Amino acid sequence: MPHIEITHDLPGISGLFAQRPDTAGVLSQLAETLLRSGDSPLSRGERELIAAYVSHLNRTPFCAGSHSAFAAAQLDGGAELVAAVLADPVTAPVSPLVRALLNVAAEVQAKAAPVCDEAIETARAQGATDTHIHDTVLIAAAFCMYNRYVNCLATDVPSDPSFYDVAADLIVNHGYGAAH
Amino acid sequence: MPHIEITHDLPGISGLFAQRPDTAGVLSQLAETLLRSGDSPLSRGERELIAAYVSHLNRTPFCAGSHSAFAAAQLDGGAELVAAVLADPVTAPVSPLVRALLNVAAEVQAKAAPVCDEAIETARAQGATDTHIHDTVLIAAAFCMYNRYVNCLATDVPSDPSFYDVAADLIVNHGYGAAH
Repeated sequence: MPHIEITHDLPGISGLFAQRPDTAGVLSQLAETLLRSGDSPLSRGERELIAAYVSHLNRTPFCAGSHSAFAAAQLDGGAELVAAVLADPVTAPVSPLVRALLNVAAEVQAKAAPVCDEAIETARAQGATDTHIHDTVLIAAAFCMYNRYVNCLATDVPSDPSFYDVAADLIVNHGYGAAH
Repeated sequence: MPHIEITHDLPGISGLFAQRPDTAGVLSQLAETLLRSGDSPLSRGERELIAAYVSHLNRTPFCAGSHSAFAAAQLDGGAELVAAVLADPVTAPVSPLVRALLNVAAEVQAKAAPVCDEAIETARAQGATDTHIHDTVLIAAAFCMYNRYVNCLATDVPSDPSFYDVAADLIVNHGYGAAH
C-alpha cells in the first residue's frame, strides 16, 4: 500500500503525477529533455536503455518495466536486446560504446562519488565525447531520483503488465508531455 | 579535475549549468518548484535544510555547502542550527516534525526502497500530512540526482567558501531561475 493516498488508482509514477500535478509538469519536462530531445548524441532508444538499466539496478519494477518497453520500441533489437542488457551488459549484443556507457551508469547508480577514471577512459576509447558522458551521468542520476520517488513512497506496480506497452505507445508517439 | 571540460571556470553545478544550458533550464525549474514554490506545507528554509542534509549524507560538499547557506539564510536558527542538523538531527534543536521528516529523507538517501512504516508513522504522529511526506521524499530523491550529477562528474568545489554566501544572496532573493 502506498505511503500516501493515491486517489486515481494508477500505478507507479502515474499515480503520483495524477495526485500532484504541480510537480508532475517539471518532472515530465525533465524526462522529455533527457530522454527525447534532439541535443544528445545518444539515440532515444539508447537513452531509454540507460534509464531501464539503472531502474533495474535500483530494483524498481515500475520504472524498469516502463523504460524497458520504451527502449524496446525504439531499438532494433527490441525486447530481447533490452532483456539481455538487464541480465548482463557485458555479454549483451550492444556496441562497445553503449556497453562502456552502461558501465558508467552503473557507477552513478551505486554512489554519489566520482566515476572511476578507468570507466571514463574505456568509454573515451570507444568514442565517447563529453556530451555522451554528461548525458549518461545525468540520465543515470535522474533515475536515482525517479526510482526513489516511486519506490520510497511504496507505490503499486501495474496489475496487468500490458500497462507498459500501452504507456510505450503513448510516450514513443507523443512524448512525456502526454503522460500527465 | 572534472571528467568533462568546463569552459566557464565555475565550480559544482554552476559549471555544468553554464556548459549545458539545455539541461540547466529544467534542472533549475525543478529546484525552484521543490524548494521555493508556495504549494508546500514546509517553509523554504525547512526544504533547503532537507536538501543540505541529504547532500551531506551523500558527501557532496558543493551541494551541502550551497544548500546549508540557503537554509541558514531562511531559518531562524541560521548557520548554527544547520550545522547542528548536519552533525546529528536527533539532538539538533528542530521541531519533532522536522526531525521525523529528516529521518524519512535519510532513508530515501540510502536506498530506492520503501521508507519503513515506523519512520512514516513517527512523522504522522508529529503531524505530517501526505503533502509533508510527498515533498520530503521528492526533495530527498531529487538531491540523490543533483548530488550524483555534481560528484560523479568530479566537478570542482569553490576555491573561496564565500561563494556559498554570494549564491545564497542570489537564490534567496531571486530564485533558482537566476542561477543559470
